[in-house]
Amino acid sequence: MRNANRQIRLKARPTGLAGPEHFEEAAEPVRPPADGEALVETLLLSIDPAMRVWMNENPGYVPPVPIGGVMRAGGIARVLESRVPGLEPDDLVQGRLGWQSHPTLAAAALQKLDLALGDAEAWIGPLGTSALTAYFGMTTIGGLKPGDTVLVSGAAGAVGQIAAQIGKSRHARVIGIAGGAEKCAFLTSELGLDAAIDYKATDNLIGAIKAVAPDGVDVYFDNVGGPTLDAALACMAVGGRIAICGRISQTAAPELYGIRQLGQAIGKRLRIQGFVVSDFHDRYDEGRAWLAGELKAGRLRQRLHILDGLEQAPTGLRMLFEGGNTGKLAVRVSQ
Amino acid sequence: MRNANRQIRLKARPTGLAGPEHFEEAAEPVRPPADGEALVETLLLSIDPAMRVWMNENPGYVPPVPIGGVMRAGGIARVLESRVPGLEPDDLVQGRLGWQSHPTLAAAALQKLDLALGDAEAWIGPLGTSALTAYFGMTTIGGLKPGDTVLVSGAAGAVGQIAAQIGKSRHARVIGIAGGAEKCAFLTSELGLDAAIDYKATDNLIGAIKAVAPDGVDVYFDNVGGPTLDAALACMAVGGRIAICGRISQTAAPELYGIRQLGQAIGKRLRIQGFVVSDFHDRYDEGRAWLAGELKAGRLRQRLHILDGLEQAPTGLRMLFEGGNTGKLAVRVSQ
Repeated sequence: MRNANRQIRLKARPTGLAGPEHFEEAAEPVRPPADGEALVETLLLSIDPAMRVWMNENPGYVPPVPIGGVMRAGGIARVLESRVPGLEPDDLVQGRLGWQSHPTLAAAALQKLDLALGDAEAWIGPLGTSALTAYFGMTTIGGLKPGDTVLVSGAAGAVGQIAAQIGKSRHARVIGIAGGAEKCAFLTSELGLDAAIDYKATDNLIGAIKAVAPDGVDVYFDNVGGPTLDAALACMAVGGRIAICGRISQTAAPELYGIRQLGQAIGKRLRIQGFVVSDFHDRYDEGRAWLAGELKAGRLRQRLHILDGLEQAPTGLRMLFEGGNTGKLAVRVSQ
Repeated sequence: MRNANRQIRLKARPTGLAGPEHFEEAAEPVRPPADGEALVETLLLSIDPAMRVWMNENPGYVPPVPIGGVMRAGGIARVLESRVPGLEPDDLVQGRLGWQSHPTLAAAALQKLDLALGDAEAWIGPLGTSALTAYFGMTTIGGLKPGDTVLVSGAAGAVGQIAAQIGKSRHARVIGIAGGAEKCAFLTSELGLDAAIDYKATDNLIGAIKAVAPDGVDVYFDNVGGPTLDAALACMAVGGRIAICGRISQTAAPELYGIRQLGQAIGKRLRIQGFVVSDFHDRYDEGRAWLAGELKAGRLRQRLHILDGLEQAPTGLRMLFEGGNTGKLAVRVSQ
């Protein structure tokens, strides 16, 4: 296997959901590293909603994945051969690996893991990019304060789970929105949220939110957009903050949902702010140090949902948008 | 006339636009002031979009005007009799006068005008609440910086005119949106804006904005909401700020418009913030001092649109929502 770098390449741009039909498998010989490069063996690949956006012709904030190119993805790998000072065989690294089994990458694309903070699964989960997204979204963007009432949508997802637990750790009252009874039970029983709303089981989301947040929502952490964001706007407290992190309900929607309650921003003095985690790149160490501390104190956990085999990656990407995962979705490429 | 306090009272709550049919005229004897009160003669009454909201059963951030009550309004008056220390007959004051000719009001409702800053018309215009709204909206909420590209909707209106001129004064490039060629000519020829867009003359507002703001909009000052806000969202630059001041297109709309472009907030890292000027009450002196300085330097002007006679107030309120005014709308009750 060391002779072949298995790859999954983008074959066609989807208009709606992405799935196996938009990708093709390929292989090329493993390339020995040049000076400043390392050959690595991919262990885990992160599957994230933003990847669907990268498949569009114009993602808006990053270049698109080219047709015929290896699908862009972050993940965890083991160094096999290194011509990078400071990287040795068997070191664990993270980086923008792409959907491939044995990439040869420049040093700038790789970062050696500090295993004192957590193991490989922790680095893809509660120390990974999704967790950093939750951290900066809840603190800097959301302006979380003790005593706040916090609402998190997509709360059983990778970012949502961490955002909700950050709320609890910082002494907020936290309500999660998720699809299905099993996810909601997970949120209240295992993550200790104060309430969970199964959006699939109600046709009155505004009423369901107001029933558990009668004094209004101070921080809404939005992962889904669309009608859930609209309902949350109607339930905000005066001075409320909305961190717009994602809009998974809209990413592959044939027609965008029209938000009707944005005018509530005036009388309620709402601050609504979108963000991209990479803007906080200079503060990742700060975020990871806090997350690692929470992890060690037993106040932070993350359910991982791991699919086995590189070939599962396209199915995994589709699963995200159909709500099939509970927790952080990843693909295990090698042990 | 000194014996009668003419009033206009709220007769019925409108569902759409407000107009004369929702009010009734009345008169009651002038009431001599008690200790801590002053009897005043109303000179000018401000007509503002927020007044339509106050007529609703649940305005959301202030109590509603009660049925049968005098319509709430701010304005400028002359003191006739005073039992308030520091207020003398012939002093000019501003305050929440209501739609009435000779109210007797508590000292707390009145503030003596500093005529060194400007005369009565200046105090209803470029030193008044609309101007303060523009000041705090552009600076604190909008985060205006030199070199920004600024877009102002309702730019020929009371708040919009001032917001646009603050942009110019602070070395921004300023584009105004208004309805009709006359208003647009006023914006570019008389107020010196860099461009004006007649929204009534285009069926492609996004294209019209992009044509004059090819690098995107850094600050959008929104007075109108609805489809204009949606178009502006599609034209924002990365890191853009939207100050949501009003939504006059939606205040009396039978059905709220659905905003489709809010998802742009993520990739563009937009900050969208609603506000109410009274939150800045403690900083009014700061705002007025700056505005007065601009006024004296000849960098700030405001076209007033004055209707003669208290009985014109209901018609004026309707005019605001039909776009009939250019500039700050006021009613002259007495010379």
